[in-house]
Amino acid sequence: MKATAVAPSNIAFIKYWGKKVEKLRIPSNGSVSVNLSNLLTTTTVEFSPKLKKDIIFYNKKIVGEGRTHKRVIAHLNRIRNLAKINYKAKTITQTNFPDSVGLASSASGYAALTVAASNAAGLKLSEKDLTILARVASGSACRSIPDGFVEWLEGNSHESSYALSIFPPDYWKLTIVVVVVGREKKQVSSTQGHRVVKESPFFKSRLKNIKKKITDVKKFIKEKNFAKFGHLVEREALELHALTLTSNPPIIYWQPETVRLMNLIQIWKQEGLEIYFSIDAGPNLFLFSKENDTNDLLKKLRDNKFNDFILNKPASGARLIKNDLS
Amino acid sequence: MKATAVAPSNIAFIKYWGKKVEKLRIPSNGSVSVNLSNLLTTTTVEFSPKLKKDIIFYNKKIVGEGRTHKRVIAHLNRIRNLAKINYKAKTITQTNFPDSVGLASSASGYAALTVAASNAAGLKLSEKDLTILARVASGSACRSIPDGFVEWLEGNSHESSYALSIFPPDYWKLTIVVVVVGREKKQVSSTQGHRVVKESPFFKSRLKNIKKKITDVKKFIKEKNFAKFGHLVEREALELHALTLTSNPPIIYWQPETVRLMNLIQIWKQEGLEIYFSIDAGPNLFLFSKENDTNDLLKKLRDNKFNDFILNKPASGARLIKNDLS
Repeated sequence: MKATAVAPSNIAFIKYWGKKVEKLRIPSNGSVSVNLSNLLTTTTVEFSPKLKKDIIFYNKKIVGEGRTHKRVIAHLNRIRNLAKINYKAKTITQTNFPDSVGLASSASGYAALTVAASNAAGLKLSEKDLTILARVASGSACRSIPDGFVEWLEGNSHESSYALSIFPPDYWKLTIVVVVVGREKKQVSSTQGHRVVKESPFFKSRLKNIKKKITDVKKFIKEKNFAKFGHLVEREALELHALTLTSNPPIIYWQPETVRLMNLIQIWKQEGLEIYFSIDAGPNLFLFSKENDTNDLLKKLRDNKFNDFILNKPASGARLIKNDLS
Repeated sequence: MKATAVAPSNIAFIKYWGKKVEKLRIPSNGSVSVNLSNLLTTTTVEFSPKLKKDIIFYNKKIVGEGRTHKRVIAHLNRIRNLAKINYKAKTITQTNFPDSVGLASSASGYAALTVAASNAAGLKLSEKDLTILARVASGSACRSIPDGFVEWLEGNSHESSYALSIFPPDYWKLTIVVVVVGREKKQVSSTQGHRVVKESPFFKSRLKNIKKKITDVKKFIKEKNFAKFGHLVEREALELHALTLTSNPPIIYWQPETVRLMNLIQIWKQEGLEIYFSIDAGPNLFLFSKENDTNDLLKKLRDNKFNDFILNKPASGARLIKNDLS
């Protein structure tokens, strides 16, 4: 009753921000993302009659209390209920990137936990059902389960809000450079952000336009139209931050270095480098470039003292692996 | 046929952003501001039959072409038409602060020009008519003419869109500290910003709520309710930037230091310092505090290497003075 899974983080082109049904994490709108090859969480779960309580290791530290502790146990309970088992579990999780800085650690974390724990518990779930299960733990985790470019269908019920692959990882050879400008834990959790955005005077206007944006981004990916894709993705990222700035209370996720890099990107574009950015609910930037331009981009980053970056390409979703963590 | 006027910049609590009638600068919404005692423009205008062409000095440099040149001459022409004179003019303008960095240089500049030139031309205009005339040159200039706390009524015609004093300068002893974080000229003019905001998906939603905001801010000033006033003013400033970020193309007016200071302000508040901020279409911050807290605020600014700031209190509007520039 032991299994290990690895799952990627994902970056959304069209963002998930706001929930229709808070407890089930049914989102206010659909979203579209790509999995990231080099932002990975690995989780081993073992259910055992010998355990008196659930034991959670996260990056080699024990998590014995607090919000993450409660959230992981709630998810283990969901899986125990489905599998009709009572055993406590030991979960060991390792990430290769800093958590809670807007790098979608909870997306990859709960995707890996869902796949590992459901397999350890003996469940044989379809990919669709795995995405539904992961979604309840952490909304965007559902997008880290299918391969490559992924759409999360908004849905209007627990069963209809799920994610699916829309293009395989190798469909479009993009480079995604994650520039880490802040490794401090963010002040406001995404869960809180999803809640307060509903008081933004702009939230309803956003939802009116979102279906068109989703249609458009899928079209631009299909056509591999990098300019139109990038333009839309940047506007969507700035719209997310327009929503956080007008939430009540407002949330400023940016750091000084976020703005320095955004302003440099405008200059680099004028110099002829074709790059576009996205930002999640955090200070870090996700830069998109064509494969051929990657070296030029990395040089510019280093020349401007952005040395903390992670190079990615579109990746597979969550999958079982053989090597357990211990 | 010579007159000199001095006019303050103003900072809007409720912002002017977007125009109903572009050419007449009739705004999409009303706005409320306060004049700043230490951000001043002084202008001397002399009409003379001896001049062959209009001569414009700005901070001791001649302005012989370009956008400002055209804009000043267009305004002199308006005043010549009203006064039925043909003489060319020499205008000498001095500011005590950097221009085009979001310190409302055009507001104080065109307010001073309007008052000086109309008097030099022999016109006897009411304050209301002066505000209407200034508005056509630069929208927010109309708010730099009446005293103290000022409302610019949106109006629906040239005659009905004007500004008036709602409270005298000494009604509320606020300190307004302008922190200059960037002295570079801004990339996108306000005129351009007013134009592209109409493509923000959020522009219409903003206008729906704006009358309530104006009513509220006037009430909070009247009651001298600093907490409610400050909360509203901050949310409005962030809303302005939510609009610029979602304009098409997006405009990012902030600099790294803008964000560093905004984030520090949140910390200072938690430490018990009651301050609030506003930002115009530029990178600089306008900090509001009670008189008693000013020294504490200035110390914190200096301790954090924000040494370029300008201390203000609520001020009178534009007025004629006796000492000509030459």
